[in-house]
Amino acid sequence: MLYTEIPTQRPVTPLLNAIDHPQQLRQLDQSQLEQVADELRQYILYAAGQSGGHFGANLGVIELTVALHYCFNTPQDRLIWDVGHQAYPHKVLTGRREQLPTIRSKNGLAAFPARDESEFDTFGVGHSSTAISAGLGMSLACRYQNKPRDVVCIVGDGAMTAGMAFEAMNDAVAHQADLIVILNDNDMSISCSTGGFAKHLAAIWEQGQFVNINADGDAVIEPHPEWAYTSRLHQSATQEADNLFKAIGFEYFGPFDGHDVQQLVQVLNALKQRKGPRLVHVYTKKGKGFAPAEADPIGYHAIAKQVVLVAPAKKKSAPKYSDVFGQWLCDEAAQDSRLLAITPAMCEGSGMVKFAKQYPERFFDVAIAEQHAVTLAAGMACEGLKPVVAIYSTFLQRGYDQLVHDVALQNLDVTFGIDRAGLVGEDGPTHAGAYDYAYMRTIPNLVIMAPKDENECRQMLHTAYAYEGPAAVRYPRGVGAGVEIEQKLTALPIGQAEIVLELNSQYDDKISILAFGSRVMPCLKVAESLAKQLDVAVTVVNMRFVKPLDENIIQQLAATTALFVTVEEHAVMAGAGSAVNEYLAQAQIVKPVLNLGLPDSFLHQAEHAQMLHDCGLDAEGIEQSIVQAWKKALQLV
Amino acid sequence: MLYTEIPTQRPVTPLLNAIDHPQQLRQLDQSQLEQVADELRQYILYAAGQSGGHFGANLGVIELTVALHYCFNTPQDRLIWDVGHQAYPHKVLTGRREQLPTIRSKNGLAAFPARDESEFDTFGVGHSSTAISAGLGMSLACRYQNKPRDVVCIVGDGAMTAGMAFEAMNDAVAHQADLIVILNDNDMSISCSTGGFAKHLAAIWEQGQFVNINADGDAVIEPHPEWAYTSRLHQSATQEADNLFKAIGFEYFGPFDGHDVQQLVQVLNALKQRKGPRLVHVYTKKGKGFAPAEADPIGYHAIAKQVVLVAPAKKKSAPKYSDVFGQWLCDEAAQDSRLLAITPAMCEGSGMVKFAKQYPERFFDVAIAEQHAVTLAAGMACEGLKPVVAIYSTFLQRGYDQLVHDVALQNLDVTFGIDRAGLVGEDGPTHAGAYDYAYMRTIPNLVIMAPKDENECRQMLHTAYAYEGPAAVRYPRGVGAGVEIEQKLTALPIGQAEIVLELNSQYDDKISILAFGSRVMPCLKVAESLAKQLDVAVTVVNMRFVKPLDENIIQQLAATTALFVTVEEHAVMAGAGSAVNEYLAQAQIVKPVLNLGLPDSFLHQAEHAQMLHDCGLDAEGIEQSIVQAWKKALQLV
Repeated sequence: MLYTEIPTQRPVTPLLNAIDHPQQLRQLDQSQLEQVADELRQYILYAAGQSGGHFGANLGVIELTVALHYCFNTPQDRLIWDVGHQAYPHKVLTGRREQLPTIRSKNGLAAFPARDESEFDTFGVGHSSTAISAGLGMSLACRYQNKPRDVVCIVGDGAMTAGMAFEAMNDAVAHQADLIVILNDNDMSISCSTGGFAKHLAAIWEQGQFVNINADGDAVIEPHPEWAYTSRLHQSATQEADNLFKAIGFEYFGPFDGHDVQQLVQVLNALKQRKGPRLVHVYTKKGKGFAPAEADPIGYHAIAKQVVLVAPAKKKSAPKYSDVFGQWLCDEAAQDSRLLAITPAMCEGSGMVKFAKQYPERFFDVAIAEQHAVTLAAGMACEGLKPVVAIYSTFLQRGYDQLVHDVALQNLDVTFGIDRAGLVGEDGPTHAGAYDYAYMRTIPNLVIMAPKDENECRQMLHTAYAYEGPAAVRYPRGVGAGVEIEQKLTALPIGQAEIVLELNSQYDDKISILAFGSRVMPCLKVAESLAKQLDVAVTVVNMRFVKPLDENIIQQLAATTALFVTVEEHAVMAGAGSAVNEYLAQAQIVKPVLNLGLPDSFLHQAEHAQMLHDCGLDAEGIEQSIVQAWKKALQLV
Repeated sequence: MLYTEIPTQRPVTPLLNAIDHPQQLRQLDQSQLEQVADELRQYILYAAGQSGGHFGANLGVIELTVALHYCFNTPQDRLIWDVGHQAYPHKVLTGRREQLPTIRSKNGLAAFPARDESEFDTFGVGHSSTAISAGLGMSLACRYQNKPRDVVCIVGDGAMTAGMAFEAMNDAVAHQADLIVILNDNDMSISCSTGGFAKHLAAIWEQGQFVNINADGDAVIEPHPEWAYTSRLHQSATQEADNLFKAIGFEYFGPFDGHDVQQLVQVLNALKQRKGPRLVHVYTKKGKGFAPAEADPIGYHAIAKQVVLVAPAKKKSAPKYSDVFGQWLCDEAAQDSRLLAITPAMCEGSGMVKFAKQYPERFFDVAIAEQHAVTLAAGMACEGLKPVVAIYSTFLQRGYDQLVHDVALQNLDVTFGIDRAGLVGEDGPTHAGAYDYAYMRTIPNLVIMAPKDENECRQMLHTAYAYEGPAAVRYPRGVGAGVEIEQKLTALPIGQAEIVLELNSQYDDKISILAFGSRVMPCLKVAESLAKQLDVAVTVVNMRFVKPLDENIIQQLAATTALFVTVEEHAVMAGAGSAVNEYLAQAQIVKPVLNLGLPDSFLHQAEHAQMLHDCGLDAEGIEQSIVQAWKKALQLV
């Protein structure tokens, strides 16, 4: 069935309702699987409408998920979903059907497979390209323990470009591990990028034949079936292309129609008879079965909740930080032809669509390849250009060694626009940007900034760009404060903080709040409230730089400060406040200090504001902590 | 010429002596290149005998280096040496001939190419598999700037398994970049590992033919020449293997004899006529031309100085930390069949040779693939096994995201033996392990330890292993203190420090020295000296745990402590001392603190002891700093 609307009423799904464990699915007759798939598709459409979240990828793997749980003895056999944003149907079939509408909300189902949520979620994911490594680990562990299990990794074509997937395939062959990799080729890399791997997949298609598997598990080369021509091929060819997977040592089968559940069952059953590393190439369509998503797979990658609120939320006029970055990029590029921009497959997310259109010859989407993205920039900088790398805080962790050795050690002129820094709300702990101050500030030569609002973000990006060395600006997910954005680009003095508020200056004793990035604004509110209730001067400093720290301003404040407070949307451990502590120690400024930031634990998903509140990092929480610390500080005096 | 001894006298090298710039090489007649290569080989043998250092790889690329500088217009054309331990001949031909014997010593040539050393060193390297990314960056930058240059990346077969190389090749094809990759296949991956990539190279060889290039730059398939059979092939075959490089979209030529300088010149000149991404597969022999190294390439990977000292250095009886790790691994494995061990291509360096022999079915060398190594361990832990990952501090940076998300976030039971932590002497800044406390301690769930001596290292490894969650022990390069090693394995209580020395307890005021890892021993000496010269009690604490920190002991000491001192062989920024500061702030213990550790800069190579001295981290330096801080602290009181 092809659907055209997202149902607002729960659809009638009799077969699905009877499946609380895949064992019940496996008891059905094979002829009923199409109906299961159809009910599952309807239910996913309905549930996604309730919860919002990833969409197209889930509709694309309905038949594949049904076939996998039908053919394999889950959870004894292991399914590992790469990235995991396509695991909604898997969650439905494994006892979490009724909870699906809670996905991504506080106390609801996680956005991705999570080991603590279900025994069917064999590996927690979220970042791309880990499944083959994890699956290989499981397969080798089972072999060592003499526990025969099938291990199946489901990996999208986009995720295959990350080097980690290649490392794992290389190693799987080394061990002749019993491992099945399902390459879920949903065309995204073909349409969105033109890398060697994508071209390779295209070449496999264009050769006019495919590798079938017969009931005995043997490979049979056959001409492409009719469906392949209608769904994918534009011309036929006969020359056999070199096959990357065979070259690396995998057995290769496919491509198969990933929406033909009967054929999938036949292929998977045949495949179970073979040993060693096997790759099955299936072709699926993102958004399959929902007409608007089939027509616009990028637009329907994820959707918002469809539930109509009684009072529609006021539309915020403030721009997203990503868009502020994107606009700055265009403006800076207009002024300086040396600017090149790099993204590891996050063109939309990082706000670079406009730049990519305006400056195609200066835009480099390197696919999911964070390591390469960073060192590519280093190479460009060696030739006197000024590359800008747009990357999420959590994904820069993938390019950490390259940041240290290829950029910072050589003091190369690379600018990093670090998006999604701090908490990220519904995306959950795998996407939190809670560690970047720590892992960056220990590196020599790096300049690290965090803006208080969107205008400062723009000016800091310019500052980082103008600075002739490695520099990073980290900014949060979501929208700015709504301040006016100055078109003129003005570089800030490196390492200079600004005092943004001074209250109750009639008192000798002072609370000095050193705030970083997103926490500056709430601290203004906090200060006003403190000034009203305590007999103490209160100063709020927008620290701006995590590195180099403005030591002068701290030194100057020290004379009158009775309590220093540091506030940041980052782990307290090794964070920006910790940098302040180091300076105070070094200068032998012996004063009480309160370090506020994220706790030493991975935080579960919730709305961003809720998470900040739970961590005591909203104005209310900050104020409470300061009042408590102030009382203790008074006892010390 | 095949040499059998390392010359102790400078060899006579008339052609080489006349080359101070490759331009002078290019003026020679092509028929003279064999003599240049022979002189270069003799000179490298002599110089390596003087300096010690990498050896076999350099002898293997003599002819290739001569051919590259002969054919390409360096430095306008760009050569990028992957890893860079094979760049000695390159340094000799580019104006650094007479300095070569100073390599790896203080103020001498760097062990690897370094941009600040020469314009011919286009990219600083040291870690593997960065060259194609950097070269692609240069190539795209040159295209954008309309500056025609040839860009040539020289990459070993071992380095090709790291995913980063694959990411870069994928992207080079996306841009149809004008980029030449020389695959320097020196047989190491074939003999040492059996990964898919190594098997692939073997398959290319076994197919009985190679892809030649004619003078017009066209590919010509020919049967293997005679030399290939004698040097590599054991059988002939005719089936054409799928070619990985062609599959990903590179043009492929080879394999060629990497010691036939005339053929190399012909191939490289022909290749210059072509555009786009091109890969040339050459076969070289590590240690080529030096009989003992040809016979034992692993033993001659690097050599020690051959210069005989007047008074031979006293042989240290203390074991290397790597060996302590290796012995512990064997002992723990004997007791617990759940133990599996993983190394990313550092079996020898990490002291695992014995384990690999004793437990081949529990030993996993995943090749140069740090990302995969960490997540493979995570997968194994999911199946109830207890994997141990042996990795250098500097290389764990490559697996950082996997450490955060695949191990720590899921709280999986993986043990990390982190070798080469702290300064690493002659290997220089690319191999320093100066940032691991910072990048690890910000991660929730991780337990982090550092031993004061080799026995504690053994017991800490056991502690980490016994702990049911992610835990790391970081230990230094080189030998232990020479203490007795207890065979019995005893787990330390998690998060408990030990007081190792208390002096002058008659005084009320105390200096509390909180020492981490390798700095505990020198602090004992420091304390004794301080106790003699100052009227103050001195306590030395072996902190043992960077995370969780022993907060109780700090709290208890605080009552009598007038000055806290933290000492570590790690960057001060975000390091272990910084964790102490955070606790003091949190507990509102307002006391002067002195944080001693590595400065905020990349440190140039020197002997380890010399580097510690220069950083003020030997006993002398620590004492001086404490005395100064104590004087200041007294003024505060």
